[in-house]
Amino acid sequence: MPHPRTGFAALDQSHIAALSTLVGPDRASTKRADLELHARDQSFHPQRPPDLLLMPETTEEVSQIMRYANAYRLPVTAWGAGTSLEGNSIPVRGGIMIDFGRMNRILNVHPDDFQVDVQPGITRLELNKSLARYGLFFTPEPGANATIGGMIANNASGIKTIKYGATKDNVLRLQVVKADGEVIQVGTRARKDSSGYDLLHLFVGSEGTLGLITEATLKLAPMPQEFSAVLASFEDVASAIQAVVEIVGAGLEPTALEFVDKETVQALNTDKGLAFPAAPTVIMEFIGSGEGEGLQAAMDICKSCGATQWASARGTEERNKLWEIRHHTYESLVRQHPGMAQKILDVCVPVSSYPELVSYSDEVLKQHRLLGYKFGHAGDGNLHINIVHDPADDEHHERVEAANALIVRRALALEGTATGEHGVGIGKRQFMLEQLGPAVNLMRQIKDILDPHGILNPGKIFLDEG
Amino acid sequence: MPHPRTGFAALDQSHIAALSTLVGPDRASTKRADLELHARDQSFHPQRPPDLLLMPETTEEVSQIMRYANAYRLPVTAWGAGTSLEGNSIPVRGGIMIDFGRMNRILNVHPDDFQVDVQPGITRLELNKSLARYGLFFTPEPGANATIGGMIANNASGIKTIKYGATKDNVLRLQVVKADGEVIQVGTRARKDSSGYDLLHLFVGSEGTLGLITEATLKLAPMPQEFSAVLASFEDVASAIQAVVEIVGAGLEPTALEFVDKETVQALNTDKGLAFPAAPTVIMEFIGSGEGEGLQAAMDICKSCGATQWASARGTEERNKLWEIRHHTYESLVRQHPGMAQKILDVCVPVSSYPELVSYSDEVLKQHRLLGYKFGHAGDGNLHINIVHDPADDEHHERVEAANALIVRRALALEGTATGEHGVGIGKRQFMLEQLGPAVNLMRQIKDILDPHGILNPGKIFLDEG
Repeated sequence: MPHPRTGFAALDQSHIAALSTLVGPDRASTKRADLELHARDQSFHPQRPPDLLLMPETTEEVSQIMRYANAYRLPVTAWGAGTSLEGNSIPVRGGIMIDFGRMNRILNVHPDDFQVDVQPGITRLELNKSLARYGLFFTPEPGANATIGGMIANNASGIKTIKYGATKDNVLRLQVVKADGEVIQVGTRARKDSSGYDLLHLFVGSEGTLGLITEATLKLAPMPQEFSAVLASFEDVASAIQAVVEIVGAGLEPTALEFVDKETVQALNTDKGLAFPAAPTVIMEFIGSGEGEGLQAAMDICKSCGATQWASARGTEERNKLWEIRHHTYESLVRQHPGMAQKILDVCVPVSSYPELVSYSDEVLKQHRLLGYKFGHAGDGNLHINIVHDPADDEHHERVEAANALIVRRALALEGTATGEHGVGIGKRQFMLEQLGPAVNLMRQIKDILDPHGILNPGKIFLDEG
Repeated sequence: MPHPRTGFAALDQSHIAALSTLVGPDRASTKRADLELHARDQSFHPQRPPDLLLMPETTEEVSQIMRYANAYRLPVTAWGAGTSLEGNSIPVRGGIMIDFGRMNRILNVHPDDFQVDVQPGITRLELNKSLARYGLFFTPEPGANATIGGMIANNASGIKTIKYGATKDNVLRLQVVKADGEVIQVGTRARKDSSGYDLLHLFVGSEGTLGLITEATLKLAPMPQEFSAVLASFEDVASAIQAVVEIVGAGLEPTALEFVDKETVQALNTDKGLAFPAAPTVIMEFIGSGEGEGLQAAMDICKSCGATQWASARGTEERNKLWEIRHHTYESLVRQHPGMAQKILDVCVPVSSYPELVSYSDEVLKQHRLLGYKFGHAGDGNLHINIVHDPADDEHHERVEAANALIVRRALALEGTATGEHGVGIGKRQFMLEQLGPAVNLMRQIKDILDPHGILNPGKIFLDEG
């Protein structure tokens, strides 16, 4: 029997034949093109194709696959849309890849409960398009068009978290297939629940290492009729963050509260032909047309915190124009540096430490001779840095990794986390012991209960899986 | 060695001497009066005093107590304010009671982060009094003046959950002493965190059965300047709940959205000399003085849903008067039935099933010849029923328990939960297998990892602990 953390059984022809029979030949593939499509996510971790691709259509099929894989010690990785950013969905030990693309249905809409039951393979945009007729939407908004299963597995969040919470705050119930094939339900459709241990949140953010999500009940919110927005430029980051703190403190409840650094504004100006001041900038969005007192109060706060320039956008149309600058940041930055790779850092700290984290990051980038664009969900203390590097230059890449490690360690020293929303995957494993201390053993014990043979997404979250 | 789920070592004189030395003699007691004070909560489960009361002042002392208790297999129960409602804090196997009353300090206020670090023994009202100077408050508002440790252990919630979430949504970081005395940290001070398994929420709501909370970082909200309110009476429960759904759907974001049945209104009228219509009633509260469009929109919705009467309260002073009816419900009902006990039921369902749950409850009460007052947090689907009974009459008490079981089972059939906010304790153990199915085994496995000798609050949550 191979050791669960160091070796697995090889996926031989008899396994491939048996597993393919479980889903039918049209939903199983060993074609190189199909496997290569599931070999990487949006990160720069080494690619690795799976040995077999399966596309189940039912929970029962997923259960049968797991029962087989568990009996024969075969690695199993789940696939949503491949948009993760820390290598979370790369099948580093090969084996079986379960692509949930065929389990992408909306099962029930409960409009009066502000809930929907879905299969995991539906994407965020598909779901919200279908929900529009009810005037409802699923609020978490990461940049990518991820699947709901992937968002739950990674506890994705994004721009609207300050108002509506992360994915974990918007999931009520899950159906999960365990490593041994058993199907369990966790959570209920009630909005509140105090019935014992919170098993629901144990699976949210577990990155497919504890079980496979086959159904979810999601909380929805009424889609606001109108939005308004403010963009304000500041002399320094400390003043910008003071405005962020005061806007939250005034109870203005923005739906977004974003930071963009001066380098990013410059890049966006160039890419989009805009002329915003090249300065630390806060962009915020509010529900409502902006005709009430809220928008004016936000602008007054920005001014009193030393904003040097500001622009407001009343109504959704004007808001959309103002949001251009933030919504297409990633694409704009990529276009500004053709042929170069961009490592996207993801750390999160208490909001009051944001200026310190930003200025420390500037120092680190300078010391390591790196170009980085800083922006993020300032209202949540979540900072991203896109560090530009030449993917073919190992020495360059090493400098990026060294800078990343220093910035993560400073976030931990500031009582923050190594990852605000991208998850641990491969890239953040090295920081878990530092962040969690002895609690890392508890994570390991929980993993060993649920997946005693270590077959579920091996090589993720835990450093001891090699 | 005694079996962990059936027997423990007796707490003999040598244990008492050794344990008393750990905290000093002035903070250890075997006096009957002290023990009796920790023998019951606010429920009617049988009283049982502990054998030894300890009042540690530091995490290190708690750790030493646990190390000793774990080595000698002594039961340990934690005590906050004794306000739980399902027997959660009754030391049913005797042993050591740890009263956190001396660990009641605010450790740090982080006003710019909207956070506070506290010890577990501080009460909700003490905490909020201290936070008032910062214009901030800890939002969960159960009826009782519980301690923060107790609120976290039971995932308490209450009236403001519809707006701000339950306790579990407002805790960011915990320091926990494990059964073996090890001190771990779970969560961080960052508002968002995707660093592996959600260990934080595993401890929230675990009722002192997985570890003892010795520190917590809580999320705070800015205290609104003004409130307004609406009270509306309806012909039937279905119309009342339709108004609840439409108010949420319109994005009006009430801070409370409460249901009170006609019997409760009558009792309150009598107790307080009020003259509200005896009818299914919805009481809602909004941030702001009510001069804007929100309050009018809420009233218009109530009218369009068939409200027969309504009253609005503009500004905090008027709101307070209107809220009388809901805020003192429990005390009013107790005064109406001197000498009688009141069993408080707690179930939660999807909001759209609330009318069905209420009408089924009426039937059950009638069949069982019981008087019950129904009210609750309708916006969350959380229903309470105060069932009046004679504590000295066993047959009466049996009818109450039979009615409770039927109502809980209907809540489960409606995809809800056996407990929205009071926890499992002793009273809801019998429903866990029905609600959770095979997931109950996962709860047991997690318990066995963290507390292999079963010494932490034995006899709670799990039916197999006798």
